[in-house]
Amino acid sequence: MPINPNAAIEFTAFKWVPPFAQGLVRDLRVRWALEEIGLDYRVRLLGTPRPADYIQEQPFDQVPCFSDGTVKIFESAAIVQYIGEKDERLLPRDPQGRFRAIQWTYAAVNSVEPAILNVFAVTVFYADLEWAKLRRQGAEDFARQKLKRVSDWLGDKQWLEGDHFTIGDLLMVTVLRNLKHTDMVAEFPNLDAYVKRGEARPAFQRALNDQLAVFAANQPQPEGAAA
Amino acid sequence: MPINPNAAIEFTAFKWVPPFAQGLVRDLRVRWALEEIGLDYRVRLLGTPRPADYIQEQPFDQVPCFSDGTVKIFESAAIVQYIGEKDERLLPRDPQGRFRAIQWTYAAVNSVEPAILNVFAVTVFYADLEWAKLRRQGAEDFARQKLKRVSDWLGDKQWLEGDHFTIGDLLMVTVLRNLKHTDMVAEFPNLDAYVKRGEARPAFQRALNDQLAVFAANQPQPEGAAA
Repeated sequence: MPINPNAAIEFTAFKWVPPFAQGLVRDLRVRWALEEIGLDYRVRLLGTPRPADYIQEQPFDQVPCFSDGTVKIFESAAIVQYIGEKDERLLPRDPQGRFRAIQWTYAAVNSVEPAILNVFAVTVFYADLEWAKLRRQGAEDFARQKLKRVSDWLGDKQWLEGDHFTIGDLLMVTVLRNLKHTDMVAEFPNLDAYVKRGEARPAFQRALNDQLAVFAANQPQPEGAAA
Repeated sequence: MPINPNAAIEFTAFKWVPPFAQGLVRDLRVRWALEEIGLDYRVRLLGTPRPADYIQEQPFDQVPCFSDGTVKIFESAAIVQYIGEKDERLLPRDPQGRFRAIQWTYAAVNSVEPAILNVFAVTVFYADLEWAKLRRQGAEDFARQKLKRVSDWLGDKQWLEGDHFTIGDLLMVTVLRNLKHTDMVAEFPNLDAYVKRGEARPAFQRALNDQLAVFAANQPQPEGAAA
């Protein structure tokens, strides 16, 4: 288990988030990548509100922000790519294999995720608002189109580019998991199996459990619970 | 001018798009990157509808799709990163400089662009629909928050990481240009100057003019125009 309080690699994560976000916060991607190649890390936990000077590290006031003594960077996909460059199990070294994987990390966060987060917005964040009710079907249909594109590409392949799991799959699986409160991914059996294949990886399981353990340990007490 | 019918580098672009999209289609990013470092390219133009087998090259049926005899990849940001790796004018080689730039490409397309495209959706694509009217203020405010984050980070720096223009700036400028039908960027004078500084680069000007020249040459004739 790569959590090691003396590790050179450190990144930020939240102490606690509401249940709907647990297992989806983006430090999960970094944990997963590090677990895949067995690199030790430690986590710097941020409470609410974040320290006022945190935006000097992370301009969008989000997690994770990563440092290892060589680089100090934010954006989970960039961090995952940085980790991938350390080990060809995550990122092939030949130019074509390398950039097919990188292309899929960008596809995951730019061609797929925005449509999925718009579904998340109208079904979770803003579900009770009139505009969200009116938009719901359209947002779902648009996301469904994206899922179909990925499903059609995937076909009966194990991973997006064949037999080799890469950072592109790591990103795509974490993006698709943002629909787990719906049945939309299940409409595409090969995509559903793909997400489950990603989630079944021991490295993913360790990463998820370690993220969830933090939230369990920092569960806010109800008012008056100590009385 | 790097357009060269015998170039090894080829990418796809659209023959024509409606005026609101002209100057915003993503092959602009690739043209701009290639112009910055003087690499020759040729363009494969796609009509409407795209050839049925194009999704085997580009699963989302979008442009650009890039090949140079070494790699064949899609996703404009991945292509720009690939081009950047050829020349440190676009992508520094030291690990920190390199990954600060890569982090900003991901930030542009994932932390900023989705909010901006949601404004584009409610003010252009779906402007007449009831949900879009109800959502407009919220979508604009959310995008404004993102602009403020980038503006605060930028401060009085010339580019996102200081004096060196990188692929991160190239992506961020092209993302922010999706608001050019609004005054939102102008609310942040340093960000407005930053976009204008990007657009003033000779490489950007050549890229934009070459994209627009294609649309001008392929302008659909009104029905009966030949009569």
